[in-house]
Amino acid sequence: MRNAYHDALDAVTDDLVAMTNLVSTMMRQASQSLLNADREKAESVIAADEEVDAAQQEIENKTTDIMALQQPVATDLRIVLTAMRMSTTLERMGDLAQHVAKVARLRYPDKAIPDALVPKFVEMARVAEEMAGLAAEVIAGKDVELARSIERHDDQMDDLHRAVLDQLLAGVVGTTNEAVDVTLLNRYYERFADHAVSIGRRVVYLVIGERTPDPDAE
Amino acid sequence: MRNAYHDALDAVTDDLVAMTNLVSTMMRQASQSLLNADREKAESVIAADEEVDAAQQEIENKTTDIMALQQPVATDLRIVLTAMRMSTTLERMGDLAQHVAKVARLRYPDKAIPDALVPKFVEMARVAEEMAGLAAEVIAGKDVELARSIERHDDQMDDLHRAVLDQLLAGVVGTTNEAVDVTLLNRYYERFADHAVSIGRRVVYLVIGERTPDPDAE
Repeated sequence: MRNAYHDALDAVTDDLVAMTNLVSTMMRQASQSLLNADREKAESVIAADEEVDAAQQEIENKTTDIMALQQPVATDLRIVLTAMRMSTTLERMGDLAQHVAKVARLRYPDKAIPDALVPKFVEMARVAEEMAGLAAEVIAGKDVELARSIERHDDQMDDLHRAVLDQLLAGVVGTTNEAVDVTLLNRYYERFADHAVSIGRRVVYLVIGERTPDPDAE
Repeated sequence: MRNAYHDALDAVTDDLVAMTNLVSTMMRQASQSLLNADREKAESVIAADEEVDAAQQEIENKTTDIMALQQPVATDLRIVLTAMRMSTTLERMGDLAQHVAKVARLRYPDKAIPDALVPKFVEMARVAEEMAGLAAEVIAGKDVELARSIERHDDQMDDLHRAVLDQLLAGVVGTTNEAVDVTLLNRYYERFADHAVSIGRRVVYLVIGERTPDPDAE
């Protein structure tokens, strides 16, 4: 029974890593579609969201099966529940990449980001992709130090988010349309990063149980 | 064992209803703080977010205990997992009420919403509170028709969201600051409503299993 449980769990971990790589690719392509007004890339990201939803459903089914068939308790149960929650988080990251691509598509053939803000969004795109890449490594390897490093990248994202807002309020943006787009895009990148942080924290909690453990379940 | 399971589950349902009422109150007060530039109300909403987080942790602990101790399968397992997911959704609704209150606090003693947009935000506030109220009833009573009615309210919210955006782009807003605030507030209400819809859908799924059921877990 322990072996069946571990085999099933390994399959779920593989699925989670694949799903993380998928949303990472989506966010990279969404950023490219945004910065280069590349409509084809935008469409491909928007289409990929179905794949993400399917992956989430698959992981939800597999984790529910594990719970029903293997009836894990204590740490084993916590691992399965964490996997289930991570799939929800990743599904949301896919949505955010899709939101970015939809803004790019809406403004095509124009670029949604005013020139003055392009360097900041190039940086946000880089940090978002790095954070998603780290999340995949952390899910695969359960490395606590690496998991914690995601938070440091999030500090960079927060600084960028604040800097974009400052530039916006300093008047680099001409039209209300641009202000609306930049405000939302700024938030999409920030939220994407928050979700990567949440994955890192869940792994830390799994490995060293940093939150107050539940005495009955332990 | 079945009785212990059902008693534990009833307690979780009560907790979920209380948590839904709490986020409903928070959103009402957040709207009041926003529309009346009421700083005290804003502070009280911001403080209440800790209560929401604690309620979510409590439900997470209780549902994990039920799984570990009662080992529910099939429909029973699905019910427990749904309760767990609903608590995550409600926690997020509390965050969104807090975000609204934080904008109100940031602009105090000014009002964040320009006069021309006040009627729309009054409506959004009303719809958001109605939807949260319905969500509480639906969690308590598992009424499928009532659960489905949440989606109709969401159509109203989507119309209002679109109308605010249209007014924004038509130039009712003077400063970039206002444009940023209105864009984000518009999104917070829309997301709050989306989460209420998700609660309705989960109840429909629980009661009549509308999504493709997972053959192994059933």
